[in-house]
Amino acid sequence: MKLLEDRIRAEGKVREGGVLKVDSFLNHQMDVSLFREMALEWRRLFAGEEITKILTIEASGIAIAAVAAEVFGCRVLFAKKSKTKNIAGEVYTTRVESFTHGNISDVIVSKDYLLPTDRVLIIDDFLANGAALAGLCDLVRQSGATLVGAGIAIEKAFQPGGKMLREKGVRIESLARIASMDEKNGVVFAD
Amino acid sequence: MKLLEDRIRAEGKVREGGVLKVDSFLNHQMDVSLFREMALEWRRLFAGEEITKILTIEASGIAIAAVAAEVFGCRVLFAKKSKTKNIAGEVYTTRVESFTHGNISDVIVSKDYLLPTDRVLIIDDFLANGAALAGLCDLVRQSGATLVGAGIAIEKAFQPGGKMLREKGVRIESLARIASMDEKNGVVFAD
Repeated sequence: MKLLEDRIRAEGKVREGGVLKVDSFLNHQMDVSLFREMALEWRRLFAGEEITKILTIEASGIAIAAVAAEVFGCRVLFAKKSKTKNIAGEVYTTRVESFTHGNISDVIVSKDYLLPTDRVLIIDDFLANGAALAGLCDLVRQSGATLVGAGIAIEKAFQPGGKMLREKGVRIESLARIASMDEKNGVVFAD
Repeated sequence: MKLLEDRIRAEGKVREGGVLKVDSFLNHQMDVSLFREMALEWRRLFAGEEITKILTIEASGIAIAAVAAEVFGCRVLFAKKSKTKNIAGEVYTTRVESFTHGNISDVIVSKDYLLPTDRVLIIDDFLANGAALAGLCDLVRQSGATLVGAGIAIEKAFQPGGKMLREKGVRIESLARIASMDEKNGVVFAD
């Protein structure tokens, strides 16, 4: 998606350790008008697919998923990274290692909101090692819902997550796929 | 706001320990069409006020704030609960005690995205003891930005946060104010 690639070129900053800093528009300060264009692109890509629920994971996927839920006309559910007082009752649980935070979390969704009749589109801001997306796919599998696919904003295509999950049959539509990046030369997009 | 109060009456569940469970529509599964109506109500309440930025705190305020940012036509910024690899550089920091999680977090925003020229509307899902809102107000104060006010979805008016912050001069517009609640009788709204 040219609009997103152009934005990454203009504002993204490559930091050491494989970090792409896009916090001026994507995951700290957020440009919701860009998110609407991204959601419209996912709707075009997933045209003809019935979607009854959008699933994401806290925290930086939530705003993108919320705007996507407006465009798809469905509810959005976010997986939580730890059990809080506000989630009583039965939950589906999976474990996710966070590249950004350097830790492992239990990730949960309430069984009340992910149903066997649901047709789920997963939305997230980044796909790199695939840990978060694999965890969300596992939650969908546990619930018996149908996984329609995943809409990702930025895929680091030089990391193994996208290949691993596509080989398992997950349809992934990434709006910007980065082939390589470094501090000196910046970002090179795939395709 | 009658639409939100009706929804709380229909789907909210009062749990022991002063917990109001609204995770079917507000803070786990999320009804973004309701969020749009809430955002339109805040725009009506803050009519005539210039708003250049919406500020919220992760995680459950993010979706409401994102939809509000679409309605107000501005960027949205979410304060993060811990320092991650993705935030480099200078940040404003405050400490917030979480009623829900039973812990204290450092809460940060990048200095790049909260500017002295900003006119800020804070958005959050709950106001109870006021710790999160006081922390967000402190971040705005540190930045030199102008705090226009706060839009809250549900205020537990029997807890001290709203009174404390209004006495400090913060304009707070809560869409549903709960006067009292218990497991037997459910929720009673103020006004």
